[in-house]
Amino acid sequence: MFKTIEWTAQGVLMIDQRRLPASETYVTCHNYGEVAEAIQNMTIRGAPAIGVAAAMGVALGVKDSPANAASGLRAEFETIAAAISSTRPTAVNLFWAVGRMRRVFEETMEMEAPEAAKIRAAKERLVEEAQLILAEDIAINKAIGKNGAALLNESMTVLTHCNAGALATGGYGTALGVIRAGIAEGKQIRVFADETRPFLQGARLTAWELAQDGIPVTLITDNMAGHFMKQGTLQAAIVGADRIAANGDVANKIGTYSVAVLARENNIPFYVAAPLSTIDLSLSSGDQIPIEERAANEVTHLSGVPIAPGNIEARHPAFDVTPHRYVNAIITEGGVAREPYTESLKALFPYGNTSS
Amino acid sequence: MFKTIEWTAQGVLMIDQRRLPASETYVTCHNYGEVAEAIQNMTIRGAPAIGVAAAMGVALGVKDSPANAASGLRAEFETIAAAISSTRPTAVNLFWAVGRMRRVFEETMEMEAPEAAKIRAAKERLVEEAQLILAEDIAINKAIGKNGAALLNESMTVLTHCNAGALATGGYGTALGVIRAGIAEGKQIRVFADETRPFLQGARLTAWELAQDGIPVTLITDNMAGHFMKQGTLQAAIVGADRIAANGDVANKIGTYSVAVLARENNIPFYVAAPLSTIDLSLSSGDQIPIEERAANEVTHLSGVPIAPGNIEARHPAFDVTPHRYVNAIITEGGVAREPYTESLKALFPYGNTSS
Repeated sequence: MFKTIEWTAQGVLMIDQRRLPASETYVTCHNYGEVAEAIQNMTIRGAPAIGVAAAMGVALGVKDSPANAASGLRAEFETIAAAISSTRPTAVNLFWAVGRMRRVFEETMEMEAPEAAKIRAAKERLVEEAQLILAEDIAINKAIGKNGAALLNESMTVLTHCNAGALATGGYGTALGVIRAGIAEGKQIRVFADETRPFLQGARLTAWELAQDGIPVTLITDNMAGHFMKQGTLQAAIVGADRIAANGDVANKIGTYSVAVLARENNIPFYVAAPLSTIDLSLSSGDQIPIEERAANEVTHLSGVPIAPGNIEARHPAFDVTPHRYVNAIITEGGVAREPYTESLKALFPYGNTSS
Repeated sequence: MFKTIEWTAQGVLMIDQRRLPASETYVTCHNYGEVAEAIQNMTIRGAPAIGVAAAMGVALGVKDSPANAASGLRAEFETIAAAISSTRPTAVNLFWAVGRMRRVFEETMEMEAPEAAKIRAAKERLVEEAQLILAEDIAINKAIGKNGAALLNESMTVLTHCNAGALATGGYGTALGVIRAGIAEGKQIRVFADETRPFLQGARLTAWELAQDGIPVTLITDNMAGHFMKQGTLQAAIVGADRIAANGDVANKIGTYSVAVLARENNIPFYVAAPLSTIDLSLSSGDQIPIEERAANEVTHLSGVPIAPGNIEARHPAFDVTPHRYVNAIITEGGVAREPYTESLKALFPYGNTSS
């Protein structure tokens, strides 16, 4: 089985998601700048996986720092955190992970110890913390899967959009984790995967990882989902999330909003599966979630080959926001939240929310 | 300006729509079999253009027939008509055109004249009729444009899906004809074009022909349309049609249904522009419209290059049906029909409907 991301002695090892499914290639990021670039250029993508990568990037940067004074290391930490944080604006898991690394860093800096010991402790503890975030993420996904599997029928066909699978996380997946858990419980689950233009995460990644697991998957173009809902082929839709506001509005891969509207129109439940680290209670609604606009040539070109005339404009919002009224449930490791989300999401955080 | 299709001494000349926008290449179909193949493999596409091609294919086949008896020519006519009719099932314009050619053929066969004269007359009149269908189609599109332009605001951004432009017709276009007419009247119309997977008619054809005319066009992936409606960027959606049932249900390129649902959800008018030859009063509802399922490899491959793993299934319905309740108006050369369509569409045919 492939690994999405792993800490190694040489650096942060990642499967190159831009080259799947044609080639299963792994790249090693040897410094935090390379990790930041890998997040930005989508070598690694998926909100939880970005969180893990961000943590590992911070750990790598601090580990390699030549600073021999706490003040120098602190300045370097801020440089590293800023570089990692500037890669992609929408997925809050990135900021959550950097925030968690910062708290560990501050703890070591506040230790009663000589400077050299603090620096050594910071380097060690940040590497441990990043690996812990990865291990926790897989455990969290299994809990999400268990909670979500209860919502699935004994036999059904589920639509998913983009890739919220093992490749989007430390492993197992959020939306695809729910499907994996349902199948593990003996349910007959078939998947329809939206290809998810322009980056084709569905065609390239979801189809690939489900086929590897022997889970029945049928690929469709994004514009077919509504048709198959209307035809009665699909009985539920389940997606991941990049950021969830306090009122339950969900930012996720562009096209998710359309899936949600079409599901509601066809009386099909629309579920969102995400770890608690994706929930950002500091934002009262999805209107406040920053939406990344990526390069237009990712729309006008495919694998570098133009698919449109050279002289036209294109737009490329990478995410959209689905208003909470279309969301039947938000499945987390802490339980399943339903309307009213302002209350149900808050209840998932008895000790407060630290996503950003 | 390019020509979509033209009758020439060498055969039926068409712009090869599979090669646009990379290359503006013309192909000549030298016999009716080549015309049938060009329709099937989408060298030419778009319901009205398919109608013109079908008529020209019939004319070419009859013209080249070696039959020297009326009975022989009649048998040949049926062979030709069957070959042309079996190419694509959804667009009714194809069957409408074949039916119109059949009526002209029958008229010549019923002439009081020697067999040789009847055969000569059939050959001449079918060639004339096919060219008339082309000329009429352009005039019809200009009338559709004029009728539809009245529905446009002075300044607005309009979404279109697939290509219902000059390339989909004899010229000028249906949905894009409305936009051209609005601009000709001095309105400020900007277009957002869905790329329209899997064949990319929006990216390759709509963007190309609008850019050629200097009409502002912005390319988006199909899954972005809902987002831009919700953001307030788009003020109307207008598409063509492949077949319209008596109750106003509209078969059109896959993804049209999703555009219509999203438009309704966002209080944006959804318009269909089509010639009367697209209306099939013999079908009481869209449930009866045959939906073509094309090869799965048109979804899993792009220009022959795989974009998905090799071992997975894919589906490829080429059309969907939009229930009439989502359609704000159907714009024809005979006027603008609105609910209740069962009455308003019938009223457009004072002499009956002969689409199939």
